[in-house]
Amino acid sequence: MKAFERLIGALKRLPGVGPKQAERFAIHLIRAPRTEVEGFVDALREAKASMRLCARCGDFTDKEICRLCSDPARDASLICVVEETQDLAALERSRAFNGLYHVLHGSLSPLEGIGPDRIKAKELVERVRAGGVSEIVLATDPDTEGEATALYLAQILKPFPVKITRIAHGVPLGGDLDYLDERTLSYALSGRREV
Amino acid sequence: MKAFERLIGALKRLPGVGPKQAERFAIHLIRAPRTEVEGFVDALREAKASMRLCARCGDFTDKEICRLCSDPARDASLICVVEETQDLAALERSRAFNGLYHVLHGSLSPLEGIGPDRIKAKELVERVRAGGVSEIVLATDPDTEGEATALYLAQILKPFPVKITRIAHGVPLGGDLDYLDERTLSYALSGRREV
Repeated sequence: MKAFERLIGALKRLPGVGPKQAERFAIHLIRAPRTEVEGFVDALREAKASMRLCARCGDFTDKEICRLCSDPARDASLICVVEETQDLAALERSRAFNGLYHVLHGSLSPLEGIGPDRIKAKELVERVRAGGVSEIVLATDPDTEGEATALYLAQILKPFPVKITRIAHGVPLGGDLDYLDERTLSYALSGRREV
Repeated sequence: MKAFERLIGALKRLPGVGPKQAERFAIHLIRAPRTEVEGFVDALREAKASMRLCARCGDFTDKEICRLCSDPARDASLICVVEETQDLAALERSRAFNGLYHVLHGSLSPLEGIGPDRIKAKELVERVRAGGVSEIVLATDPDTEGEATALYLAQILKPFPVKITRIAHGVPLGGDLDYLDERTLSYALSGRREV
């Protein structure tokens, strides 16, 4: 049963998966046709090998520069800063934003020991320093960490001649941006105000 | 992004996983260290290659005969019939049963076209026919399919000189056996009655 226990152990590492769900996943995978399991392994390995962070915005991509950052139709003077790549995907679904993004890959959390060096804040400053940016929209989550991160970014970006805005608090406080409906996100974006 | 989409597609096949959770899993896996991902792939392949159904009870095992069926301390004259391997695990955690098991790998469902040939009913009859069995405890789920399955098994086992019992309905109707607490399961087992 060692291989089975090891498989359950590996599945339990997936975010939000407990022992019971891991057991269900393991049994499903053992029962699934061999071709399906090998297809899964191939997709996982290929994704793992080919995916990297976009050199500009930090989103996941299989190219040097991601699809959005390479799109000439997007307004490159506008950068929307998000915590996670899922937040970017959620905002894109709202179709309310035509600029570019910057993915921090986290938020400041003194309690968990996550300081500015653990998120992609320096990279954001570099993008602003490189010029051509007129506005930074801070779209971090409306919770303690997200607010602290927005405040910190507003401070370190102060020396630069850019407008710094925060998405409107049309989004419920304490909520997770990634789970909001498109209309609320769209409203929050259009109601953004200068910090 | 094809590999990423393929990975999400593969993860969505896991039971109960929707697009959002699959996306979270995919991002976690892409971010995880390469060694962790390879450890997962190894465990999956090894489990897939080594796991099979016990020739006696039908539970998952990496041997010809599983650990429980090979244990001389278990009472081989008592067979508890369950729908799924998770139910077996749940009953074992209750420590209320010292016999052996029989895993049906499903339940009768005319609506879904699952008839007696799709569950391991014939194998159960063979075990009883082989002799040495004095009691069959029907521990299928207390829902429509589970009750129909218990009724069907009681009928086909009628010609044999074995006592046929059903676990007590201390378990809430419509519930899923796999999610019950140990005390309720223990109570349901000890209160079993002859069908």
